Amino acid sequence: MQYRFSDSIAGMKPSAIREILKAPADSETISFAAGNPSPESFPVEQLARLSADIFAHQSTLALQYGATDGYPPLRAAIAKWQKERWQIGKTADEGYDFNDTTLIVSGGTQGIELCCRVLCNPGEAVICEDPSFIGALNAFRAAGMRTLGVPMNDEGIDVDALEQTIKANPDAHLLYVIPTFQNPMGISWSVETRKAVYALAKKYGLIILEDNPYGETRFAGQELPTLKSMDEDGVVVYCSTLSKVLSAGMRVGFVVAPEQIASKMVIVKQTEDVHTNLFFQILCHRYITECDLYAHIDKIKDIYRRKCNLMLDCLAKELPEQITYTKPEGGLFIWCTLPDSVDGMEFVRACKAKKLLVVPGATFNCDQDAPSQGFRLNFSTPSDAQIVEGCARLGAVAKEFLSK
Amino acid sequence: MQYRFSDSIAGMKPSAIREILKAPADSETISFAAGNPSPESFPVEQLARLSADIFAHQSTLALQYGATDGYPPLRAAIAKWQKERWQIGKTADEGYDFNDTTLIVSGGTQGIELCCRVLCNPGEAVICEDPSFIGALNAFRAAGMRTLGVPMNDEGIDVDALEQTIKANPDAHLLYVIPTFQNPMGISWSVETRKAVYALAKKYGLIILEDNPYGETRFAGQELPTLKSMDEDGVVVYCSTLSKVLSAGMRVGFVVAPEQIASKMVIVKQTEDVHTNLFFQILCHRYITECDLYAHIDKIKDIYRRKCNLMLDCLAKELPEQITYTKPEGGLFIWCTLPDSVDGMEFVRACKAKKLLVVPGATFNCDQDAPSQGFRLNFSTPSDAQIVEGCARLGAVAKEFLSK
Repeated sequence: MQYRFSDSIAGMKPSAIREILKAPADSETISFAAGNPSPESFPVEQLARLSADIFAHQSTLALQYGATDGYPPLRAAIAKWQKERWQIGKTADEGYDFNDTTLIVSGGTQGIELCCRVLCNPGEAVICEDPSFIGALNAFRAAGMRTLGVPMNDEGIDVDALEQTIKANPDAHLLYVIPTFQNPMGISWSVETRKAVYALAKKYGLIILEDNPYGETRFAGQELPTLKSMDEDGVVVYCSTLSKVLSAGMRVGFVVAPEQIASKMVIVKQTEDVHTNLFFQILCHRYITECDLYAHIDKIKDIYRRKCNLMLDCLAKELPEQITYTKPEGGLFIWCTLPDSVDGMEFVRACKAKKLLVVPGATFNCDQDAPSQGFRLNFSTPSDAQIVEGCARLGAVAKEFLSK
Repeated sequence: MQYRFSDSIAGMKPSAIREILKAPADSETISFAAGNPSPESFPVEQLARLSADIFAHQSTLALQYGATDGYPPLRAAIAKWQKERWQIGKTADEGYDFNDTTLIVSGGTQGIELCCRVLCNPGEAVICEDPSFIGALNAFRAAGMRTLGVPMNDEGIDVDALEQTIKANPDAHLLYVIPTFQNPMGISWSVETRKAVYALAKKYGLIILEDNPYGETRFAGQELPTLKSMDEDGVVVYCSTLSKVLSAGMRVGFVVAPEQIASKMVIVKQTEDVHTNLFFQILCHRYITECDLYAHIDKIKDIYRRKCNLMLDCLAKELPEQITYTKPEGGLFIWCTLPDSVDGMEFVRACKAKKLLVVPGATFNCDQDAPSQGFRLNFSTPSDAQIVEGCARLGAVAKEFLSK
C-alpha cells in the first residue's frame, strides 16, 4: 500500500541520528544523549501524599473533562509565581493594552507548537538560533515552516546576523529563542544581547517566542532577565514547564502570552488534546501552593551543580585541548566543539562503537543538511560513576581521532 | 496591538454558540449541553489504590519522559483488547502488508487531528457526516482543511450522496466518520452502510478515519462491526479513547493504524506534547490488566441505559409530536429535530432564557454558515431530577414555539 502524505510531513527527513542513538539494549552502554531531568529531582513522597488526597476529596473534578486553557487555580498560581519570580505578565489592570494571560499546556513544546500554528502560515520562515532545540525545529517543520538559523557567539545569538536574516526574510513573523541555558549549547545570552534582540523584534514587527524550560535550574552565576520581563509592547510569547522541577512524565507546561494570541492558542489546543491531564494540573496546583517549591528547587540545583562540575572535571582530564566545551551555569547540557579536521558524525559513531551515546550537533541545525563540529552531552541523567566512565570513553575516542 | 494570525486560525469563526452556552454561574440552570461521561462512571477506588502503588514502586518510570508512541505494556494490552473485542488490528504476522500499529494519544481527538495533519494538505477537503463532532471539524479547520458534509439518513451516512461528494471533490483524501452512536445524532450506521462506505473508500482511494469513542457504551440492541474490522487493505485509521470508560480528565486515547501512517503520526505527536501523561498510561495499563474492565463497563451501561430511558420517557411526555428525536442504543446523546416553521437558534435561546442549556445543531454543521433544525441533548451528565425538570422546561419552550 502506497500512502500519500502531507507535504510538510513527507518533507521531514528520517533521522540518521535517531538510528545512531537507537542502541540495542545493553547494560554496558552509557548515555550522555538524554535530555531527561534527574530522577532524584522528582518530589515523589509529596506528590504521592497529595495524589492520595485528590483521589479522596477531588476525584470527580480531577477525572472529568476540564477547561482547555487550564485548571483556573493552577493558572492563577503560576501567573503569581512567574510575576514574582521573573517579572513576567503585564495586565490590563496595570494599564497595558495587551493583557498577558497564562495558559496550561501539555509540556513546553506544545506552547511552542501552538504559537507557531497560530501566528505563521505554512511556507513562511521562523528564525531560530543555530543550533536550536530539535523539538521546536520539528514542530515548525511539521507545521510547514522554513527554519532559518542565526549563528551564536559568546554573548548568545549574533545580533548583527539576526538583523541581516530579518531583512533578507520579510515573510518571517516569529523569532524562536532560548536565551537562558540554551539547548543544545548550555550558554546564556548577555543582558546586552537580550535588549538588542527585543529592540530588533519591535523594530521589524516580529513576535519573540521565548522558551525558558531551564531557568529555575541556575546553580552558578547571576540571574539574567527574561525577554518577557522587558515586554512593554506585547511582542513576547513566553513558554516554560514544570518538567524540570516536578516531573517530566506528567506533561504540564505553561505559556504567558498577550490575550489575543493566547485565545487563539486555546482554539488550536482544543483540537489537539482538548486539555492537559487535569489530575496532574490539580496536583501541580496543590504542590505549588502547599509545599515549598524553592526548597525543592534548591535540592535540584545541588544535584545538577555537582553533576555538571563532575563532568567538567572529567572532560578537563580526558579531552585534548583541541576539543572545546561550554561551562554552563544551569540547564542539563554541555556542548563540545571538535576541531575542523574531525568529521562530527564519524566521531559520534566512534563513540557509539565504544558504547557511549552522545547527540551529534547536526541534529540541532536549522538546515537539516548542514554538517556540525559540535556534539551535546547531558549530565543530569547518568549516575556519577557513568559520568566518570563515559568521559573516559569519550577521551579515548578523542585521542584516536586527534592522533590520526 | 494588532497581530497577524495564520490564515487557517483567522478563518475560524468565533462561535455565537459558545456565547449562548456561556451561562452565568447559576444553580438553577440545568445543562443538557455537556458531552461529559457520568462522574459515577469513574472507578475511583481502584484508580486510587493502583495510583498509590505506582508512586510506591514505579515512580521513577512514571514521572520521567516516555516514548512518543506510548508506554509499551499499555500499547500491547490495548492492541490485544481491541483485537479480541472489535476484531481490530491486522499484522504482518497474519500476512498483511500494512501491519496495524497501536499508538497512545492524549484523547481520541488527538488521534483525529494527527491523522489529518499527516495525510492532508491545507486547502484540501475532508469529507464528514453532516452534522458531525465539532472537535474533529475544528481540528480539520485549524489544519487548514475544507470540511465537506454528507447528509445522514436512517441507515447512517447517505451512501449515494457520499459517492457524489467524492466524485465532485477529487482533492479529498480523508473521510471522517463516527458509525456507532454518532455524535451529535446518537444513531448507528447499518451493516449495509458500513460495507458500502468501505467499498467506496477503497474504490476512490480515500482513507477512512473511524472515530469510535462510544462503542463500549452499548446498553441496548445488537453489536455492529467496526469499519476497521473490515479493513483488508490498510485504508482505515481507527481512533478511540478510555475517556468514557475510565476517566475523561486523564486524556488517554488510542489509535490503531497501518504502520506507515502511524509512524508519521508519531512524528507530529512528538511536536505537540512529546508523549501522553505517563503516570496515567501506567495506571490504565494496570487497570486493564489487573481489574475487571468489563464488570466496570457493565455498571456504566446500567447507568446510561437508565438515564437515557428516563430522558426518552420525559421527552415522550413533554414534547409535542412535531418535534422528533432519536432513540439511541448507546453513547451520550439524543438528537431532536424541530419542524421547519421553528428557527433553531431562536429555540435554543428561548431554552436558555428558561435556564435550560442545549446545543444548537448548527454547531455541528460542516458548513459554519448553514442553519439547523436540530439540537443535541446529553443524558449522561445531569442528575435524574435535572433530567425530569429540564425536559419539563424543554416542553414548555416547545409549546410556546409550536402554538405561535
